[in-house]
Amino acid sequence: MLSSKTTARKAIALHKKLKGKILFGNKTHQLKLKEIQLIYTPGVAAVSETIFHHPDQKYVLTSKRNNVAIVTDGTRILGLGNIGPYAALPVMEGKAILYRQFGSITAFPLCLNTTKKDQIIKTIQAIEPAFGAINLEDIESPKVMEIAEELERKISIPIFHDDRHGTSVVALAALLNSLKLIKKQISSIKIVIAGAGSAGFGIASLLKFAGCKNIIVVDSVGAIYKGRAKNMNKYKKIIAGSTNFKKEKGTFVEIIKNSDVFIGVSGVKNMLTSDMIKTMNQDPIVFALTNPEPEVEPLIAKKAGVKIIATGSYRFHNRVNNALVFPYLMRAILDQKIQKISLGMLLATAKAIANTVTKKELHYNRIIPDVGDERLQKNITLALKKFYKK
Amino acid sequence: MLSSKTTARKAIALHKKLKGKILFGNKTHQLKLKEIQLIYTPGVAAVSETIFHHPDQKYVLTSKRNNVAIVTDGTRILGLGNIGPYAALPVMEGKAILYRQFGSITAFPLCLNTTKKDQIIKTIQAIEPAFGAINLEDIESPKVMEIAEELERKISIPIFHDDRHGTSVVALAALLNSLKLIKKQISSIKIVIAGAGSAGFGIASLLKFAGCKNIIVVDSVGAIYKGRAKNMNKYKKIIAGSTNFKKEKGTFVEIIKNSDVFIGVSGVKNMLTSDMIKTMNQDPIVFALTNPEPEVEPLIAKKAGVKIIATGSYRFHNRVNNALVFPYLMRAILDQKIQKISLGMLLATAKAIANTVTKKELHYNRIIPDVGDERLQKNITLALKKFYKK
Repeated sequence: MLSSKTTARKAIALHKKLKGKILFGNKTHQLKLKEIQLIYTPGVAAVSETIFHHPDQKYVLTSKRNNVAIVTDGTRILGLGNIGPYAALPVMEGKAILYRQFGSITAFPLCLNTTKKDQIIKTIQAIEPAFGAINLEDIESPKVMEIAEELERKISIPIFHDDRHGTSVVALAALLNSLKLIKKQISSIKIVIAGAGSAGFGIASLLKFAGCKNIIVVDSVGAIYKGRAKNMNKYKKIIAGSTNFKKEKGTFVEIIKNSDVFIGVSGVKNMLTSDMIKTMNQDPIVFALTNPEPEVEPLIAKKAGVKIIATGSYRFHNRVNNALVFPYLMRAILDQKIQKISLGMLLATAKAIANTVTKKELHYNRIIPDVGDERLQKNITLALKKFYKK
Repeated sequence: MLSSKTTARKAIALHKKLKGKILFGNKTHQLKLKEIQLIYTPGVAAVSETIFHHPDQKYVLTSKRNNVAIVTDGTRILGLGNIGPYAALPVMEGKAILYRQFGSITAFPLCLNTTKKDQIIKTIQAIEPAFGAINLEDIESPKVMEIAEELERKISIPIFHDDRHGTSVVALAALLNSLKLIKKQISSIKIVIAGAGSAGFGIASLLKFAGCKNIIVVDSVGAIYKGRAKNMNKYKKIIAGSTNFKKEKGTFVEIIKNSDVFIGVSGVKNMLTSDMIKTMNQDPIVFALTNPEPEVEPLIAKKAGVKIIATGSYRFHNRVNNALVFPYLMRAILDQKIQKISLGMLLATAKAIANTVTKKELHYNRIIPDVGDERLQKNITLALKKFYKK
């Protein structure tokens, strides 16, 4: 594995060399006069007229179905925070490349010059015709959740919110496999989620849907419980109403005690210490998912007795990274004409990802498939076909 | 050449087969874990931070400079009119392919779900960060001219309006070569332009700038002259103030008499008849540029005594089509960091295109280079470098 510093230096050198890493292709390999007459004037007029008279043909005669807009306003980029739309570009372009490479999808990075909710919504409404789906990315919470909700009512293509949906799927997939190894049941464990933004909300919702009965979400002021007055919003209220039934109060240090699983999506580097880990139940599972710097370094976690440690980073084993989800899930969404993201389909996807790791492969350092695992697409596609047949 | 009907059938079959003709590529040919760490997390964080601290690096470290948004609202597609954003998609995708093929540019078709001027402007302002330039396309006039004007004040990337700028350049290039053959001077000819939309406005402006002293623009109610009350707008008033100094009034049939050049950008099929051509001066030049059906069929024009007939269509010789301009001119705009489209640089571009046809090649049926002529890029690039050195 590369050290952080070497990675940074190499990353900047590569980007300089490429002078921008994304470039259009086209499917017409030669482009002589004969082809130009068909893909452009005069032939293209007949194609446009066909769509005008038979609107559904837009899915057959254009690339709409295969185009995804990666939309961000640059307010919550990786663990870097509000760095604006220009500094967000390299991340969105990287995402576009993964969409292309693993999902054969044309994803275009639309980094917006506005952070206003209404203007973001109106912009996405305006650009809808060219796209088969929207991927909301790295927009601050709770604004982004309100944007997603409103867009679901206003436009007719699916809204995939990777920070919420993608993260929840990969976290659940990793958890399902971890529990097989540790031999605990999802229905009887205590899970502490650090972070109540899009990812925390998404993970709490999906884990509950998957059968977990004891979830506590902690934000910067402590445990979220029903009736808490401080630092709440609409989505934290939903969390409060559906988790932490014992209404446990207190700081993270108090809440982490006697828990079985820690899932960090906090944006806070090194928040989980060795001492805190030692207060957790036997065989604790630690997912420190904040990027680029996790809530605890894997070496420290292992020294404190953690058997299964996962991060979102490619620097370590057990890479619980959305890249295992979004290219494949989006491919299935587009191909199967799925209109709406639901907890049911996310659970089916998580199980498909978990089951991609065979019994023989499953190990403390291999709870999740590698990025680019060629079995992922087939397994997710089949799982969703089965889910929608029900 | 293919007949219209065959072309239409083949075009639809090709689009069905391709299931959408555009697809992203990426510049990183292999994508193993090592590369993913650099183009995506964790390495990309260093790239984002570099841009955050040194904003100019966005032009070095991302694809922004090479991305062009082809923006339309579907209100004025080819000769088909207001067919909406979905039916506009195949045309914009065709344009994207030509940008890619001849200019190595990533052009993304953004067909908008709004026809409101303010909303179009706000959408383009919002998406600015991801693009190096905007190509306004097939939006109804005069709205589109107002959009371009306002955007030039509001955003910092160049606004290329192909219907105005591109069409004017290719028309002037063809005219310059035609005049060499016919042996007339641009300063002493009478030119009638049919159509006072974006193309008519652009052509009139550029021909005047190039030295033509007798231009009359005709719209659906007749010649445009200073003081005309009927059917005017801001841009027709500019035309009225800068052309037709004798204030000639009358219908197209009257105005076309004793003219040397007809340039049709009217959207009206077969508006120029054989009888009308016979009232023009000796050696008339006819550019019937409306697509997909020209103002006069080349065969009819030739029978009526026209030596040089050009259309915008690939079905005939002398293809005065914007595809000779936009991929190459945009390449030069992006590479040379040109901020604003001006008449001076358009004139330099037109001369470069005209001079690409050598004296030996120049002929009544070859007044303009073929689409894809490999000399075009070099000639336009050099011409603009020279222009901006002045």
